[in-house]
Amino acid sequence: MPSPRTSRTDDGLTVKGQRTRQRIVEHAAQLMFERGVAGTTIEDVRAAAGVSNSQVYHYFADKHALVRAVIEYQTEYVVGPQESLFARLDTMDGLRAWRDFIVEHQRRRQCRGGCPIASLSSELAEGDDDVRRQLSGSFARWEHGIRDGLRAMHEAGRLRSEADPDELALATLASLQGGLLLTQLQRDVRPIATALDASLSLIAAHTTA
Amino acid sequence: MPSPRTSRTDDGLTVKGQRTRQRIVEHAAQLMFERGVAGTTIEDVRAAAGVSNSQVYHYFADKHALVRAVIEYQTEYVVGPQESLFARLDTMDGLRAWRDFIVEHQRRRQCRGGCPIASLSSELAEGDDDVRRQLSGSFARWEHGIRDGLRAMHEAGRLRSEADPDELALATLASLQGGLLLTQLQRDVRPIATALDASLSLIAAHTTA
Repeated sequence: MPSPRTSRTDDGLTVKGQRTRQRIVEHAAQLMFERGVAGTTIEDVRAAAGVSNSQVYHYFADKHALVRAVIEYQTEYVVGPQESLFARLDTMDGLRAWRDFIVEHQRRRQCRGGCPIASLSSELAEGDDDVRRQLSGSFARWEHGIRDGLRAMHEAGRLRSEADPDELALATLASLQGGLLLTQLQRDVRPIATALDASLSLIAAHTTA
Repeated sequence: MPSPRTSRTDDGLTVKGQRTRQRIVEHAAQLMFERGVAGTTIEDVRAAAGVSNSQVYHYFADKHALVRAVIEYQTEYVVGPQESLFARLDTMDGLRAWRDFIVEHQRRRQCRGGCPIASLSSELAEGDDDVRRQLSGSFARWEHGIRDGLRAMHEAGRLRSEADPDELALATLASLQGGLLLTQLQRDVRPIATALDASLSLIAAHTTA
């Protein structure tokens, strides 16, 4: 039986290799969040992660590859924790619990930082079409989480038949993103709370009974 | 009588001086929009505007002063053209005309670039509190344009008394901003159109008769 440290995982890395790669991505994500992608060099990441240059280049051919891994990491970090809540977005109670989770998360962060995926988007959207599509896919994962709940609500007859759950989901994600930006600038949860309350109130207006 | 080129304007600059300052700001805004603030040096701006170093430093003590002028310029560029439409946001027809103006503007730009004020915000919000407050003020001007229309609609009795025009205005601006970000990433007007339609439909749900 191979030792767990040398056995290969799905991506062909040893467990130890996977941990090193993960450490590099985490430090890159943190630095890019603080200084922007343009303000972060491979050398900064190498130093912060405490690895050698050859280790960085073993896992990432270039900065572009590292940026793509950072987008993947931030998507998992931002959207992942909401997934258990997405499963409950088929009721108004579930929608309210999700809204509270997001507002509370901003309050705990003192409304700092905004959405990491949105920050990456603002900086990278006009630079590279592959990166733009990847970022669009990150938001699509988020949108689909909301949409699946609203579709289930619609199919169960709790949303009126003329309601369009896909459009409501897209509009809700847009509200959320704009709300996060204004909350970051104002250092106040009011914009994100008001934006999500408006979305929920529009959804509620489409409920039956 | 002094010649128009040497007479002083309100800010103490000659007309010629004001034009030079304006040219520097326009080129700085364009470069910062394309490359980000971090990716734009004073030297880049100087070269693009075709002025000397001493001219740049005559008008702007440092890059920080230039960034503040760029935020002011972009606010005027983005919010200014909407102001004649804001005056009509006290009717559903006026709201729909404003919605169409924004969607059409994105279509004409092939959904590229997103909102220049939002891009500056993503890059600068965590760096400097004065700049963050200035950006927050830019969005406040936008929000107040929408709010004044909805307040007038409320006072005229076209919105139900229990409706809150201030919250509807803030939620509408949030939708707009999130919609612009998703439209930029998807290169499709659907997100901005859907987001604004949702906001307008929420406002319409609060109208009387």
